[in-house]
Amino acid sequence: MNVNDVLGNYNKDIFSEIEKYLSTITPDSLQEASLYLTKAGGKMLRPSLAIITAEAIGGSKQNALGTAGAIELIHTFSLIHDDIMDDDDMRRGKPSVHKVWDEGIAILAGDTLFSKAFEIIINTPQEEVSAAQLNVALSTVADACVKICEGQASDISFEGRYDVEFDEYMEMIFKKTSALIAAATKAGAIVGGASEEVIDAMYEYGRLIGLAFQIQDDYLDLVSSEDELGKPVGSDIVEGKMTIIVIKALEEASPEDKETLLKILKSEETSQADVDVAMDLLDKYGALEYARNVAQENVEEAKKLLEILPDSESKQALELIADFVLERKS
Amino acid sequence: MNVNDVLGNYNKDIFSEIEKYLSTITPDSLQEASLYLTKAGGKMLRPSLAIITAEAIGGSKQNALGTAGAIELIHTFSLIHDDIMDDDDMRRGKPSVHKVWDEGIAILAGDTLFSKAFEIIINTPQEEVSAAQLNVALSTVADACVKICEGQASDISFEGRYDVEFDEYMEMIFKKTSALIAAATKAGAIVGGASEEVIDAMYEYGRLIGLAFQIQDDYLDLVSSEDELGKPVGSDIVEGKMTIIVIKALEEASPEDKETLLKILKSEETSQADVDVAMDLLDKYGALEYARNVAQENVEEAKKLLEILPDSESKQALELIADFVLERKS
Repeated sequence: MNVNDVLGNYNKDIFSEIEKYLSTITPDSLQEASLYLTKAGGKMLRPSLAIITAEAIGGSKQNALGTAGAIELIHTFSLIHDDIMDDDDMRRGKPSVHKVWDEGIAILAGDTLFSKAFEIIINTPQEEVSAAQLNVALSTVADACVKICEGQASDISFEGRYDVEFDEYMEMIFKKTSALIAAATKAGAIVGGASEEVIDAMYEYGRLIGLAFQIQDDYLDLVSSEDELGKPVGSDIVEGKMTIIVIKALEEASPEDKETLLKILKSEETSQADVDVAMDLLDKYGALEYARNVAQENVEEAKKLLEILPDSESKQALELIADFVLERKS
Repeated sequence: MNVNDVLGNYNKDIFSEIEKYLSTITPDSLQEASLYLTKAGGKMLRPSLAIITAEAIGGSKQNALGTAGAIELIHTFSLIHDDIMDDDDMRRGKPSVHKVWDEGIAILAGDTLFSKAFEIIINTPQEEVSAAQLNVALSTVADACVKICEGQASDISFEGRYDVEFDEYMEMIFKKTSALIAAATKAGAIVGGASEEVIDAMYEYGRLIGLAFQIQDDYLDLVSSEDELGKPVGSDIVEGKMTIIVIKALEEASPEDKETLLKILKSEETSQADVDVAMDLLDKYGALEYARNVAQENVEEAKKLLEILPDSESKQALELIADFVLERKS
């Protein structure tokens, strides 16, 4: 079994589901802007996780498809709004929504996807999932949405702060990235008909691979190639972002090296030579290795949680996805 | 009974409910930005309608308070995002959220309120309202959110178009303004424990007074005073907005007068003299009176729907609110 087959397996179904729900949106400009990023393609990691989790419990793809689509819409909504906030011009190899249309339509497209996501989950046929179960799924997704906003606001509030601590960083990435992945696996478990114990385990699985996913993002920003990354390597250093790697290096560095690193992070004009110096320091204090280890531990712990599931191809797929989080190059 | 007492009656309770739910938001900047507009004060028409409707059916304020608060949060979210899109500097007599903070935080504050709104409704205690009923309420609110976005996008798409027809305009204001008011009365009816028939009647009541509310807004823009309005009178003429009044006048006017009116609407630099000429034309063709009549008919029809309710002070309050929609000066 190959992770790319596993992840690509449901993309067509998920896309059709999303297209079906967005096809009623008017005016046309809003419909096009709402569907644009989904059409541009994406890994569909979160909705695939929801479906695979449901299947691993013995549920059907059909029952999980609505919830899965809704979760992808929430992910897409957050990308559209984040791109406005960060003024990012490109997304998925194409101009971002607020560049193709304008900020107003981009804000509205995000809001529409958000609204549609809830509409879709609420309208899951009641013969498939009980109303009470549906409320737990909805509550999980709504809670993840609050956390996404809080995480993004925390990330923004870290700008210009160089004393961010490990726990603060972990809390931020849990909210910004991991909460929705955990909501995907939890909601998948619920619509799959899992017991409380399994639902909790699947939330924790999602939370752990979500943390590893974000740490890997931070790692790839430093060690990947521009081709694979689709953006300049070391951009987090240039922007002075506090990641787990930088936090660790600042913690371990000698006063002199700490000063050098801080100067580069704070600089308004960071040269490639500066980035190289910073990279050497991150390496010198084992910060890159440390981040990889933390991520690896999360992945191992996540895989252990899967022992609660009966053996199946879907369970294997969840194991592969956990590993994929750290194997991916982009 | 006085409509101001009726409307002000629950504001403190609604505010406390909202404050309670927003008090857990972190970081502080996001919490402050999320609570700011609610603190700035507002009529709280929508949440009051939800509570009064629940009470008119025999339900309790306590059961309706969460849903009411959620609906006010959705209204506030839409104001914050609209102000960014329209670049409106002031709201409720204070600088708008994106002026006090920035666009990024304003987008996030709106998104947070949106997420919280769903979280609040979902977490309505199940001993008060059944899970199935709650899903209907949620579905109504989610549907209203989609409509708000669609209505705002339609309104934007009308810019530069001078052939907007009556039906298009009514559809736009239904979505932009009326859908959430209808969701408020419908959700109030649901949490109050109403029958299907009463729930439908209360949705229709909300829809009709919502339409009248928006038509009155368009009317006040032309006939109010700057003091009462808090913005220049005739700003819709200056901005060339298509309202029911302008649509009617363009429909009725002689070719010559139509040309004059269109020229003023299309002009990039509209003088006070131009506004006066336009006003005379709107008056000449009975467009102001026509709009008032349409609004009045909606209000009368809405009040007739209340006959389905048993006599009570809450029913009286709903009658007063229907009249208030057209009596208000700001």
